Amino acid sequence: MGPQAATTKGVATRELILDRAYAIACREGVEGLSIGALALATGMSKSGVFAHFGSREDLQLAVLDVGGQRFGEAVLIPALRKARGLARLRSIVAGWYDWVRDNHHGCLIMAAISEYDSRPGALQDRVVTLIHRWRSDTARAVQMTIDTGELRADTDALQLSFEIFGFALALHQDTRLFDPQQARAQADLAFDRLISTHLP
Amino acid sequence: MGPQAATTKGVATRELILDRAYAIACREGVEGLSIGALALATGMSKSGVFAHFGSREDLQLAVLDVGGQRFGEAVLIPALRKARGLARLRSIVAGWYDWVRDNHHGCLIMAAISEYDSRPGALQDRVVTLIHRWRSDTARAVQMTIDTGELRADTDALQLSFEIFGFALALHQDTRLFDPQQARAQADLAFDRLISTHLP
Repeated sequence: MGPQAATTKGVATRELILDRAYAIACREGVEGLSIGALALATGMSKSGVFAHFGSREDLQLAVLDVGGQRFGEAVLIPALRKARGLARLRSIVAGWYDWVRDNHHGCLIMAAISEYDSRPGALQDRVVTLIHRWRSDTARAVQMTIDTGELRADTDALQLSFEIFGFALALHQDTRLFDPQQARAQADLAFDRLISTHLP
Repeated sequence: MGPQAATTKGVATRELILDRAYAIACREGVEGLSIGALALATGMSKSGVFAHFGSREDLQLAVLDVGGQRFGEAVLIPALRKARGLARLRSIVAGWYDWVRDNHHGCLIMAAISEYDSRPGALQDRVVTLIHRWRSDTARAVQMTIDTGELRADTDALQLSFEIFGFALALHQDTRLFDPQQARAQADLAFDRLISTHLP
């Protein structure tokens, strides 16, 4: 087996480990990850798992990135195929709300906020980076909708993205604790009203 | 020492234990509570702590109730001194936002949602009950504001309470991850706009 094949196999193994690690972290939290549990889940030795991740923290950081990537693939990428402006913004919000529904047993990154908010370090920094990036993406989609003239020129894109985050967070909470369908209807209505009060 | 004195001392000891347990749970989560750690924190024996709580779960349930009680004392009780209607609703929201600021290193109940959302049982049920009660209190305050004629008669009290929860959740998240002052300004603006779009 030449080096290229070894490398390809290495990448595939790393992806397999990350896939299992992501599934575990969705249930148990990123703090619930251990090299030992992953070795069991993948049928590898602990040293085999270690060979792909220098430390438990490196593994945890990689899993947070997987969470961000899967969210982006589910929510942002489809929206980018829509025209800039209200169509794209609506697609982002609908995709996000769908994500909350489909991941209601645990959104890894939402849970990670609670896990790391009082533990400064590389993991907290990564959570902040991921949430900040998504907030910026949302604000940019709002700004484009102002630029296309579909929202009033004096609309505050950061303010709207704050409020949209709030609706998604309330939906996330209610979906887990109360009636998911009622929560979705309320979140849809909240977003529609927000848009309707900022029309030109 | 007669039985009355013993009972009074028993109540005081129980309250001392709960006070320490609450402080630990704010930092470590309700799942971070153990009879052993509490014995250390109170200078009591494990069996002494056990005598006041039949089990670790009873202790955890009592700590969740302490969380609900302290939130109520900080937010709801002061608001009940205001006149029914917009003054009381504004007081609830301002007190809630202040609570988020003052407890930004960890609101025990907010964290407990993440801890128990995928673990059915008595602790999850208690979290749902506490959040549901607060949602109902908020909706009732909105309904009174409709009844006083300060909000439009066709206002949906449950919808408004959903949106207010969203703003508080976004504030909670941003206070921990980003700039607390900017988050507060955005949360205030969100609530003011929500009210302004429902005026008669």
